[in-house]
Amino acid sequence: MDQLDSTTVVQIGLIVKDVEKAASAYAEVFGIPKPAIVPIADDSFANTNYHGQPSTAKGKGAFFDLGPVQMELIEPVGAPSTWEEFLRTRGEGLHHIAFKTMQLEEAREFMASKGMETVQYGGWDGGQYASVDCSKQLGTILELLHFDK
Amino acid sequence: MDQLDSTTVVQIGLIVKDVEKAASAYAEVFGIPKPAIVPIADDSFANTNYHGQPSTAKGKGAFFDLGPVQMELIEPVGAPSTWEEFLRTRGEGLHHIAFKTMQLEEAREFMASKGMETVQYGGWDGGQYASVDCSKQLGTILELLHFDK
Repeated sequence: MDQLDSTTVVQIGLIVKDVEKAASAYAEVFGIPKPAIVPIADDSFANTNYHGQPSTAKGKGAFFDLGPVQMELIEPVGAPSTWEEFLRTRGEGLHHIAFKTMQLEEAREFMASKGMETVQYGGWDGGQYASVDCSKQLGTILELLHFDK
Repeated sequence: MDQLDSTTVVQIGLIVKDVEKAASAYAEVFGIPKPAIVPIADDSFANTNYHGQPSTAKGKGAFFDLGPVQMELIEPVGAPSTWEEFLRTRGEGLHHIAFKTMQLEEAREFMASKGMETVQYGGWDGGQYASVDCSKQLGTILELLHFDK
């Protein structure tokens, strides 16, 4: 791989202190239903790995469809995770933009060859993700999403 | 207005120190052409206003189409501006998500009624924008875009 296999932003990730409160505010401002607050990285699919070590850190999430892009609100629960690190070091704010990939391992290796290291990876019932720290090169964290189907 | 008139994210804004360098990195990682670096708020359409006062602050920008969403890279030039403030206080990172509105003044008033203040507004050859600080409520700055046509 010598470039990512998608240029389409599919998700924007936002770290918040209180996902219930933030989700209510989004619903009110945009006039859309407040979604259910759901556990993130809280099941047998998670296998969260942070900086090369297993982590039991979790999150509470809310997902909004804002046109073609999904907005993911994440309240960190426990530590260590890229979500908890972001909240602790930068405060609330936009954490990542996400892209689908058909080849997660190859994409991670390609990015590592550019000095962009995977700081966290894991899975959910349906796929796997990698959070890649591109702060120095691209000014933000990118998230790579691989869907099983 | 009792809710925003669009729920579609049309742009993601990213603040960078060096837009030439960042634009080159995006082009390389995504395998897409590097766009021209263009002046932002640097013409007679700008009329930039920051916290209620005229400002001569500008920016240098690069625009990428990442699927249905435009990625705007902004290197702040001069001060004061929301771009310069963000870089100074938070460093490089994702600054805003943007939504189109047909009624910019009404949208600003609606958001102000929710405690979300316009920190900067201005225009370009084709429209007007407002940067609304929703950090406390929505965890980020929203940008409202009104296109003349």
